[in-house]
Amino acid sequence: MPLKNRDVKIEILDSTLRDGAQGEGISFSVADKLACAKLLSKLGVTYIEAGNPASNPKDKEFFERLCSDELTPSKAVAFGSTRRKGISCEEDAALSALLSADTDIVCIFGKSSQSQVEDVLGCSLEENLLMIEESCRYLSNNGKRVFFDAEHFFAGFIESRAYAISCAKAAARGGADTIVLCDTTGGMMPDDIYSITKAAAEELSGVRLGIHCHNDNGLAAANSISAVLAGAVHIQGTLLGIGERCGNTNLATVIANLQLRKGYDIISPEALSNLTPIAREMAEICNITIERSEPYIGYSAFAHKAGMHIDAVLKNPRSFEFIDPSVVGNTRRVLLSEISGRSAIAEKIRGIAPDFDKNSGKIREITEKIKNREHKGYEFEGAEASFEILVRRILFGKEKFFELVKYRVTSEKPYEVGCSANAMVKLSVGGEVVLRCAEGDGPVNALDKALRNALEVFYPQLHTMHLVDYKVRVMDSAQATASMVRVLITSSDSTETWTTVGVGSDIIEASFKALCDSVEYKLITLERTTE
Amino acid sequence: MPLKNRDVKIEILDSTLRDGAQGEGISFSVADKLACAKLLSKLGVTYIEAGNPASNPKDKEFFERLCSDELTPSKAVAFGSTRRKGISCEEDAALSALLSADTDIVCIFGKSSQSQVEDVLGCSLEENLLMIEESCRYLSNNGKRVFFDAEHFFAGFIESRAYAISCAKAAARGGADTIVLCDTTGGMMPDDIYSITKAAAEELSGVRLGIHCHNDNGLAAANSISAVLAGAVHIQGTLLGIGERCGNTNLATVIANLQLRKGYDIISPEALSNLTPIAREMAEICNITIERSEPYIGYSAFAHKAGMHIDAVLKNPRSFEFIDPSVVGNTRRVLLSEISGRSAIAEKIRGIAPDFDKNSGKIREITEKIKNREHKGYEFEGAEASFEILVRRILFGKEKFFELVKYRVTSEKPYEVGCSANAMVKLSVGGEVVLRCAEGDGPVNALDKALRNALEVFYPQLHTMHLVDYKVRVMDSAQATASMVRVLITSSDSTETWTTVGVGSDIIEASFKALCDSVEYKLITLERTTE
Repeated sequence: MPLKNRDVKIEILDSTLRDGAQGEGISFSVADKLACAKLLSKLGVTYIEAGNPASNPKDKEFFERLCSDELTPSKAVAFGSTRRKGISCEEDAALSALLSADTDIVCIFGKSSQSQVEDVLGCSLEENLLMIEESCRYLSNNGKRVFFDAEHFFAGFIESRAYAISCAKAAARGGADTIVLCDTTGGMMPDDIYSITKAAAEELSGVRLGIHCHNDNGLAAANSISAVLAGAVHIQGTLLGIGERCGNTNLATVIANLQLRKGYDIISPEALSNLTPIAREMAEICNITIERSEPYIGYSAFAHKAGMHIDAVLKNPRSFEFIDPSVVGNTRRVLLSEISGRSAIAEKIRGIAPDFDKNSGKIREITEKIKNREHKGYEFEGAEASFEILVRRILFGKEKFFELVKYRVTSEKPYEVGCSANAMVKLSVGGEVVLRCAEGDGPVNALDKALRNALEVFYPQLHTMHLVDYKVRVMDSAQATASMVRVLITSSDSTETWTTVGVGSDIIEASFKALCDSVEYKLITLERTTE
Repeated sequence: MPLKNRDVKIEILDSTLRDGAQGEGISFSVADKLACAKLLSKLGVTYIEAGNPASNPKDKEFFERLCSDELTPSKAVAFGSTRRKGISCEEDAALSALLSADTDIVCIFGKSSQSQVEDVLGCSLEENLLMIEESCRYLSNNGKRVFFDAEHFFAGFIESRAYAISCAKAAARGGADTIVLCDTTGGMMPDDIYSITKAAAEELSGVRLGIHCHNDNGLAAANSISAVLAGAVHIQGTLLGIGERCGNTNLATVIANLQLRKGYDIISPEALSNLTPIAREMAEICNITIERSEPYIGYSAFAHKAGMHIDAVLKNPRSFEFIDPSVVGNTRRVLLSEISGRSAIAEKIRGIAPDFDKNSGKIREITEKIKNREHKGYEFEGAEASFEILVRRILFGKEKFFELVKYRVTSEKPYEVGCSANAMVKLSVGGEVVLRCAEGDGPVNALDKALRNALEVFYPQLHTMHLVDYKVRVMDSAQATASMVRVLITSSDSTETWTTVGVGSDIIEASFKALCDSVEYKLITLERTTE
């Protein structure tokens, strides 16, 4: 790949905590915001835009608790707008409050489209120019470095090139350090972004330009890259692309593309190799699921399913992978399915039994079993511990560690707090029968506790493991509450994390199966370490 | 918007049923494939690529059952590859089987990268050229219109421009109708796609060019548009972007952008105004969830949350919507949240009570109640029936239709088929107490049945409603089985479909609350029609 762009320094401003928070379903606590900021600084983004300390108590507390040193090398940015019409900057409470924020940098937005000024702001075009210039000057004269977000710049430029440019010039005269051209409604095309950014760079020669895109037409990443190729040196977006409507520019995509495909030097290679785990931790905090097919960081981003592709990628990885997945901290996966074929399954089995022979008769038995389970609704793609249990049972003829005799779980209302359900579990371990019960917060929690109570009689080491994630998927949901249910459970002990799957005609049965596999996997690893 | 491109006819080839089926988690039955093909023809895509009738029994059955007339105006395309090395076309069973497919058009792929021919195919460069030319000629001489997918074309072009071009020329000599340039590993950038497509168009003057992209770097839509701007007239992809790894080009995005932003005339305006419902029906068949933030067709694509944005969009929709949502069959939504403010809530309330006064004292009470519920984990964004119940109770002082006295639900194993759980529900309706029980397939199903058994004593009209969808979301899943649970239930009767939400510390409690709201909403509509 060309490394021609190493000398141009591109700055990244992440606005997950401000523009990202406007996404549907997103809501941050102060602790969430602090955790996100830490992750962003670990990735090494240049700026973290985090809201306005004067606008609400949550942002105020966040800025108070934020220890700027902990964010190195990133810098915090406070966000606000130009002064309101008809008053001076000193009279504008929001603007002067921005001064009190303990950040060296502030970012303010103002309008740069003639029709927006007339229709929405309702003031004269001249007054808007004064609002921009005076606000930038007020902040910069008071020691702040100022970024100016030129709202509606591209649509404004098409409407009246002269007026859009005069807004940007007003900000520059006021002392703004960077003028950020915004595609506020997210409808621009990459070729138009390129030509307008190029024109703006010529008209505003010597001014640093930035780009801020929204993804309404699905082209925000491409548009941001277009702007950089036209001369912008500052990119605003959110790491996972979250934001109002269709989201903001996805910075994970843009950083990886500019660095790996265009030779820019944006974050360190070490930080880039943490992109996937950092993004996934961020998603946990945002309480969103990264799409499996998400470029670079998705769980399926380097997953191969078609038999012919799997063969080719094992011969030459570049056949179906344009980069080595480890460069962005992701991993190649070979999927099991009706079209993935024998090589794929043999490759997976060798992860468990390195000496496994592809031509062994056992592969047929394993393949049959997998297809049979998949037909019932199992999915081993994400539940590798359940896959390992299945394979070991066939390869090594492992007996189960325990057999269920019976369970009964009861939920009721009214209930005592924390005890909305109770469960009874009866197991047989090597011919010995044990019966235990437990109360819990809901039926699955009660069942989990009763199962461990019973098993710890025989396997006290189980107390080191605990559940860390629980997911439910109703299959064929058109049948609503009587449809099949798939449960994925992720468990962890001090050294390892594993995921198991259970399928049943109800949520209790499916959960119980996934719980049993989870415990069984732990028992296998215990056995392995004492062998 | 410019309409300059109306004279250039761009063809769309949808490969959901072939390349899309390679996506992780995608598996089609023959009935699914037929239903997808019907939807695609309703949208009016030019071609539907549907697999190889000779490769497996499923595709064979599909082609047999496919009545081509029903697909008008779309045309079915059978898919295969060039002949194998070292044999003649007549000896290649797969190739001659393609001839037997009852389609006028076939699409075959072949390699156009020197290193791929040497490393993966393992034959001479000359032999590969013969394989391409002879295969195209064999099919076209036998009356087929031939599309040639030039696999690895862009990477191949960078590696050896001369060889990549000679592969394309071989296909053209063999009679291929369209040469489709493929970014097989999905790592190309839009500016490179543009310049390489432009160069290919010059070298192959007079040949129709197509584009086939994968989304590994998140730029497949932008890349496809770049190719069109450089002269390609045929775009391959999948309507929802599904496909192996990060998926194929998302055709919904590309069609909408080219038509609405670049003035191409691809599908009829009527078909475009069905884009959202068609895409959502397709997602149901594929058993995938369209991301809320998906451009054009997502549930949040035109959803406004920030108070200031809602005010602006109500004044002038173009402030934060680059197109009218109805043009693509989507709708504007105003979201309720801590940052959405009073106008948003008043706007929603007017949907229920048209005369509602924004300055009424009730708005404060409703806002408080919503924020309080949201704090507990409720989300009204997707559960408008629960929102309506809450509003009616405050505005009109509605009493509840019934009060829960007690429920108890028991799941057990072993169980009789279809009766893994039983439930008892005790309710009070206007002072009268009723106790009913039911068995069911899982605890929620049993509880649903027992609840209706009890209520139908008073409200026999409830038998017309039924549940159509059931979704579970574990919140703060790091606490695993003891965390809060949110359940969304969608119900339907002959005329209406509505969604309700319930939150609780366990799945049974959360489901019960959503079930109660669902029934209550139905009772409200019954009351309304008899008023």
